[in-house]
Amino acid sequence: MEIKILKKILAANDFVADQVRNELTQKSTFLINVMGSPGAGKTMLIQRAIEKLDKKVGVIEGDIETTMDAEKFAKLGIPVAQINTGPFGGACHLEAAWVRDTIKEGNFSDVKVLFIENIGNLVCPAEFDTGAHKNVLILSVTEGEDKPLKYPLMFRKSHLLLINKCDLLDRLELDINLLLENVKKINPHLDIIKVSGLKGNGVNDWISWVNRNIKV
Amino acid sequence: MEIKILKKILAANDFVADQVRNELTQKSTFLINVMGSPGAGKTMLIQRAIEKLDKKVGVIEGDIETTMDAEKFAKLGIPVAQINTGPFGGACHLEAAWVRDTIKEGNFSDVKVLFIENIGNLVCPAEFDTGAHKNVLILSVTEGEDKPLKYPLMFRKSHLLLINKCDLLDRLELDINLLLENVKKINPHLDIIKVSGLKGNGVNDWISWVNRNIKV
Repeated sequence: MEIKILKKILAANDFVADQVRNELTQKSTFLINVMGSPGAGKTMLIQRAIEKLDKKVGVIEGDIETTMDAEKFAKLGIPVAQINTGPFGGACHLEAAWVRDTIKEGNFSDVKVLFIENIGNLVCPAEFDTGAHKNVLILSVTEGEDKPLKYPLMFRKSHLLLINKCDLLDRLELDINLLLENVKKINPHLDIIKVSGLKGNGVNDWISWVNRNIKV
Repeated sequence: MEIKILKKILAANDFVADQVRNELTQKSTFLINVMGSPGAGKTMLIQRAIEKLDKKVGVIEGDIETTMDAEKFAKLGIPVAQINTGPFGGACHLEAAWVRDTIKEGNFSDVKVLFIENIGNLVCPAEFDTGAHKNVLILSVTEGEDKPLKYPLMFRKSHLLLINKCDLLDRLELDINLLLENVKKINPHLDIIKVSGLKGNGVNDWISWVNRNIKV
């Protein structure tokens, strides 16, 4: 019963997501949905992209509560809109209809690269197509080698994996080769870039990936 | 509409959770529900507790996919049962009815301390009472100071916060005092212990907390 309801919700969501994607393509706005666990480094790696991209950038910030991250982005002088899911029962993901309505109300008409920072959650956001052209998953090296196997849907739905906080590798027991093997097992087509949002390593590769993938 | 359905599900879950709790109290089994983000250190801190507790321990392992963590626990020679939520649409949390059925089928009759390792997720598991006597939240210092404000329900529903990976503090820009302030804002009654699962710091305090709170 629960699964049946979920299927209906997902089908409706997919329909809206395709609409969002098509409309944005016509407007030449490239939508990137950034997902990952709480604290994986989503906000910081979007900030790094805003600093380095030579295109007009905007952000749709998804949180259950607070507008803290949206305020950080607004300080950078770019158009930002907040979706708080608190009023929707504290939803653990963003849905395409909320993205559609946020874009309508927001000030994104001349934005070339629009980021969604999804709710910090390695499970639920993977189930809901937001209408993005590309999904980017951020995994911190502190999270462990087993995460691709334990949260496979997220790895399957993503186009790029940013392995973040690589500056901490010397202090962890993480086996990075095993992590990479596990990623390949789940999704051999996933692009992978190792980065450190804090130290800046790999950020240029992340920016190049964005520029290379813009096809709108 | 979606919220209405959720409310019904939650009310039914609460009813079963109370049953689970009452039955376990009668059997003198103390049930601890361990929650936290993927990679916060749930498995490791439960392992540390198993090594140090002078009582018979069991584990109910919750994962969307895989039995890897359950196998780790089984190697320690304790009774373990796995709940995989994959067949339930990849559910992002555990429900009380699944815990009830797992206890019935498992080999936990003489267990004094039964741990649930919940799905790695800082959002959804907080909404579902599992029937546990106490909820323990594990937050890694790598996750950032803002998490209590952004995921308040989880902090409100927990009785103990284990701040894990404190051995990495010297390498992070985390302001631990701000983190503690944010925790107090959301839940002033939350017990807090700083630990390092990897290095062992604070583990004795975690064990003492368990022993002090057993009231079954």
